[in-house]
Amino acid sequence: MSNTQKSLINVGIVGGTGYTGVELLRLLALHPNVKLRSITSRSEAGSKVADMFPNLRGHTNLEFQTPDEAPLEECDVVFFATPHGVAMNEASHLLENNVRIIDLAADFRLQNTQTFSQWYGIEHSCPNILSEAVYGLTEINRESIKRARVIANPGCYPTTVLLGLAPLLKSSLLCKNTQIIADCKSGVSGAGRKASVGTLFGEASDNFKAYGVTGHRHNPEISEQISKISGQEYDVLFMPHLVPMIRGMLSTIYVDLSKDALDTNVQDLFERFYANEAFIDVMPQGSSPETRSVRGSNALRIAVHRPGNNTRLVILVAQDNLVKGASGQAVQNMNLMFGLPETAGLQSIALLP
Amino acid sequence: MSNTQKSLINVGIVGGTGYTGVELLRLLALHPNVKLRSITSRSEAGSKVADMFPNLRGHTNLEFQTPDEAPLEECDVVFFATPHGVAMNEASHLLENNVRIIDLAADFRLQNTQTFSQWYGIEHSCPNILSEAVYGLTEINRESIKRARVIANPGCYPTTVLLGLAPLLKSSLLCKNTQIIADCKSGVSGAGRKASVGTLFGEASDNFKAYGVTGHRHNPEISEQISKISGQEYDVLFMPHLVPMIRGMLSTIYVDLSKDALDTNVQDLFERFYANEAFIDVMPQGSSPETRSVRGSNALRIAVHRPGNNTRLVILVAQDNLVKGASGQAVQNMNLMFGLPETAGLQSIALLP
Amino acid sequence: MSNTQKSLINVGIVGGTGYTGVELLRLLALHPNVKLRSITSRSEAGSKVADMFPNLRGHTNLEFQTPDEAPLEECDVVFFATPHGVAMNEASHLLENNVRIIDLAADFRLQNTQTFSQWYGIEHSCPNILSEAVYGLTEINRESIKRARVIANPGCYPTTVLLGLAPLLKSSLLCKNTQIIADCKSGVSGAGRKASVGTLFGEASDNFKAYGVTGHRHNPEISEQISKISGQEYDVLFMPHLVPMIRGMLSTIYVDLSKDALDTNVQDLFERFYANEAFIDVMPQGSSPETRSVRGSNALRIAVHRPGNNTRLVILVAQDNLVKGASGQAVQNMNLMFGLPETAGLQSIALLP
Amino acid sequence: MSNTQKSLINVGIVGGTGYTGVELLRLLALHPNVKLRSITSRSEAGSKVADMFPNLRGHTNLEFQTPDEAPLEECDVVFFATPHGVAMNEASHLLENNVRIIDLAADFRLQNTQTFSQWYGIEHSCPNILSEAVYGLTEINRESIKRARVIANPGCYPTTVLLGLAPLLKSSLLCKNTQIIADCKSGVSGAGRKASVGTLFGEASDNFKAYGVTGHRHNPEISEQISKISGQEYDVLFMPHLVPMIRGMLSTIYVDLSKDALDTNVQDLFERFYANEAFIDVMPQGSSPETRSVRGSNALRIAVHRPGNNTRLVILVAQDNLVKGASGQAVQNMNLMFGLPETAGLQSIALLP
Repeated sequence: MSNTQKSLINVGIVGGTGYTGVELLRLLALHPNVKLRSITSRSEAGSKVADMFPNLRGHTNLEFQTPDEAPLEECDVVFFATPHGVAMNEASHLLENNVRIIDLAADFRLQNTQTFSQWYGIEHSCPNILSEAVYGLTEINRESIKRARVIANPGCYPTTVLLGLAPLLKSSLLCKNTQIIADCKSGVSGAGRKASVGTLFGEASDNFKAYGVTGHRHNPEISEQISKISGQEYDVLFMPHLVPMIRGMLSTIYVDLSKDALDTNVQDLFERFYANEAFIDVMPQGSSPETRSVRGSNALRIAVHRPGNNTRLVILVAQDNLVKGASGQAVQNMNLMFGLPETAGLQSIALLP
Repeated sequence: MSNTQKSLINVGIVGGTGYTGVELLRLLALHPNVKLRSITSRSEAGSKVADMFPNLRGHTNLEFQTPDEAPLEECDVVFFATPHGVAMNEASHLLENNVRIIDLAADFRLQNTQTFSQWYGIEHSCPNILSEAVYGLTEINRESIKRARVIANPGCYPTTVLLGLAPLLKSSLLCKNTQIIADCKSGVSGAGRKASVGTLFGEASDNFKAYGVTGHRHNPEISEQISKISGQEYDVLFMPHLVPMIRGMLSTIYVDLSKDALDTNVQDLFERFYANEAFIDVMPQGSSPETRSVRGSNALRIAVHRPGNNTRLVILVAQDNLVKGASGQAVQNMNLMFGLPETAGLQSIALLP
Repeated sequence: MSNTQKSLINVGIVGGTGYTGVELLRLLALHPNVKLRSITSRSEAGSKVADMFPNLRGHTNLEFQTPDEAPLEECDVVFFATPHGVAMNEASHLLENNVRIIDLAADFRLQNTQTFSQWYGIEHSCPNILSEAVYGLTEINRESIKRARVIANPGCYPTTVLLGLAPLLKSSLLCKNTQIIADCKSGVSGAGRKASVGTLFGEASDNFKAYGVTGHRHNPEISEQISKISGQEYDVLFMPHLVPMIRGMLSTIYVDLSKDALDTNVQDLFERFYANEAFIDVMPQGSSPETRSVRGSNALRIAVHRPGNNTRLVILVAQDNLVKGASGQAVQNMNLMFGLPETAGLQSIALLP
Repeated sequence: MSNTQKSLINVGIVGGTGYTGVELLRLLALHPNVKLRSITSRSEAGSKVADMFPNLRGHTNLEFQTPDEAPLEECDVVFFATPHGVAMNEASHLLENNVRIIDLAADFRLQNTQTFSQWYGIEHSCPNILSEAVYGLTEINRESIKRARVIANPGCYPTTVLLGLAPLLKSSLLCKNTQIIADCKSGVSGAGRKASVGTLFGEASDNFKAYGVTGHRHNPEISEQISKISGQEYDVLFMPHLVPMIRGMLSTIYVDLSKDALDTNVQDLFERFYANEAFIDVMPQGSSPETRSVRGSNALRIAVHRPGNNTRLVILVAQDNLVKGASGQAVQNMNLMFGLPETAGLQSIALLP
């Protein structure tokens, strides 16, 4: 396997019938450095990918394969767009064959295996591989990602909350006792492409509600990463809501600055922190990022507000939950791992209107 | 059992967990002449109806019952809001107990049992009961409905097509060789409240398509009734489409007038035909009925166009598929059967916006 | 004028071409104790109300009148569904004619005229009438409303925030230094029926964003009323968001309990506080109120959460912004003012799905 | 000016604040052979394009210019994304400066100037330029487009109807007396980005209706082009409907085959007719093209049905009204005019979900 830009990267996708799967296909089918080798689905084996996802007609002739017949060992990298618990059972075999892994599920997100089994209801099957896995929040963990064999692609909500807070966490500007409130809103595609009454059009359209009010799996993920980034423990209150739109996520984050930080120009801090990032857009003072401004693109837009010039900050973060919140960030990580420009295959402009 | 207006009608609902079920509950919970006695659901038995449908909180304390424990024999009328094939198996038992039946499924819609088994994939289990069943298109079959023991509540699409054509069919104004084209568009609730990938918000929102392009069950129903109403056979081409809205149906019907009919004032004909109908609104010349103008109400609005004053007529018909297209018409039929004013419990105004 | 239930209340509506106007018409057209006398609109004078709002076809023959020709002085009560600044100029004349006023705009909401002119950009023209006006938050100011001549119907957002907090404010259970965070989400109808690019379907659909991030008129209204209800000053951070749905509002409110209140059973407190209220529904522990569960109805549903049994409370409040958040509450106030049952004309069940 | 692939094409856009304008920007900003030189807007002159359309943040630094200051004469091609009547007044000046013109409005669509003034309410100001203008239906008029100085980019509805019928029209397979019925459905963005009550979210969402029922400007355009393509006159009945989605158009076309054509394999005919087209996808027998399968892409998908193997054909055609129905086809035409591969800058995959 040669990791240069010249040869194409052989890519496999395990579990390609969901929304993160078809989004990977959309991005990778036009990626200049990728050869899509295989996509697996037990239930759809033998049928054409483009029959299930007609947007791909004319762009790929790939057929779904069973996991057994798929030549995953011959790939350079395999993406897992599967339910939680699949990637960890395949990881060892693939690593032995020098195949890198990018898991879009949660198998490698929580280093604390107790927390993992508590929230996901299964024991972790390969703690040793888990310990080498890198949390694929690209802008924060770039150097480790380059060298990683296993990437835990971040959850969609954590991506917004962590990138919205990172400049403050890295600079220790938050009040130590602040409770971080993340009031988050997601489009319905975040719930996946599984038949379910709750996400029927008749149920989710023209409606708004909070969900997971008694606890959500992304809460421990956010807490663990905040602690890693800042070196401190913060209490995080995470409230997800369901928006009647297909794609898009907006997180409204409330935090308190420490007394020492009151003179900091927070707008300036954010702009400098993300100055060289291709996908992070710190908007001008007074802005309000809209989810449609990132629809279909890997951009994540941030606006910072300090109402009444007080201690309380309000940070607004918008992303496409299926792109920067899932498949786009996964491709961004792949680019890093294989020495490609980070933006390769990810330069499309958001679809507006 | 006394069918006067004074005593309350004891009502049972079989299969109340779908959209026509909850719509029946919404209408009947405030109906001044109805006592809701029982609602059945095998899967939800023991749980409160208002826990599943929170709009009913404060309006009913009813709990779902298993069909076995439900006192359906003590009801005056039982509505079947079930999948096709359920009502016909319960009908005989209920009729023996003097319980009338209003079936919102298709069991009693097609008098031709061969056609029935061809389209629904099951044999008809009680052809003798079928033969006495009345097709509950209220405005057309009013007198038979009053005396009926079994009502086949019409399909949503047929209701619009038949009421849109009835003034022409009854007056023999159509060209005998005309192909009736019914280009129909329905909101997603028409597909029911069953978990299914195709009607997920992520699939059906921001999208439009035809479906059932190779044939749809409402086609034979429309043809059979057109033949009954007109005494003639017409070729009907029915094309349903799925609209990204919850409720509402618009049918655009194309027909040719016969040569003899070219001098007829069609607008006038329609207005006179429906002059005394509480729920049928023939709109002024040049109008375009919107589905939101009937959202949540039992009204059906019609506009007739004759582009270029030609032989071709275009008839636009709008209804709420869950009200006039299902549960509202069912209640309208119940009112007739029990000697109540036809509008009892059905006088709400459409929710606009 | 006799305020008994027997005679009909003569009602006028000034400015009936917007969403709160048509919603008043929907509610009042079927109200058993109301006679709609007049509805005004300069631009639409002479045209039928039902031509503009086809859901009213068959329910009213009313035509729009110019303010001059409208017999408002002969009404018992006049609703103002106008832009801000209209009601205060008409109030004196109507009061002199013994006509009561319910203003759905902001003219009489803020007792502090400086704050009013700061946020609304106009001087208050009748401070003396303002001083007798009653803030029409029905459940809190019921007794004053009964005797009022002028009602300031509350803003939609304030209704949710104040009713969500009232049990705590009345019992002094909040930490004195808590910053009340109201992260609120509204359907697009809240922006009214005025031609505007920002609320076009192409702009607002399939999108989510915060707005008014640098300040919103409902903030001072919320603050003033919180101070009135609690007798204390609290810092309120109000963040409104726009949801791609027509109707509905969900407010997620974050507050801290005082040390002394930590043993309070907050669920029980809320249930007892609203035990006798027809329109306030305190949902069971663990619930999440959905906006569709109140679509078209005057209900307001509340759920209280205390994550980790900590000092922080999360209160979720759902209402239909056009009903309990505007026209429904206005009718509820009218009922009180004229000695009618508070629920008269307001008993419809929310449209779900 | 050199029209080779090597040098960049200098592009100007007149009137870039509408939906076809921002869509041109989205496509052209990433087009490998284009240099965006200028975009004009009187009302927005001096402000950044990316401030109005935040999806373009990071992709262009262009500012709106007044028409006077814009260096349109230095461009190789100017797109008009303006209201009807603007391009025809600027055409002569630009042509004199060797600037080619692609008009996305209707100024050059109708060769019959009487018909033009009848439907658009203005006299045509440059019939001589009109007479050399080429109707930019790429797949049909490819050779003339290559040599054209002025392109009339087709209307969105005509694009679907004409491409859906072209294989039949070119082969003279239609019954001479057939009335072509085009029952068409469009997303709301087709109405443009102008403030207007009728296309507010509160009016157009969760609603469906026909519009233009007494006549629509695309009807004469369709008729004129059908006559050109087929060499025959057909009666066309065009009924547009408004779908509550942002983008997308589906046309359901009903025609009768001639007696001689009854043995033709129509599926095969369509497949062969479009076999070499990059953007036209003839789907397999039994298919139903969904608008989301072309969302954001220049693809147009067609399915042909022949219910009951009868004389009547039903042709379903789906496109994105803003791409193949407007800006995408305009760029496709530009590619042809400048000797580029037709797919340059147009290869993105539709956004699904």
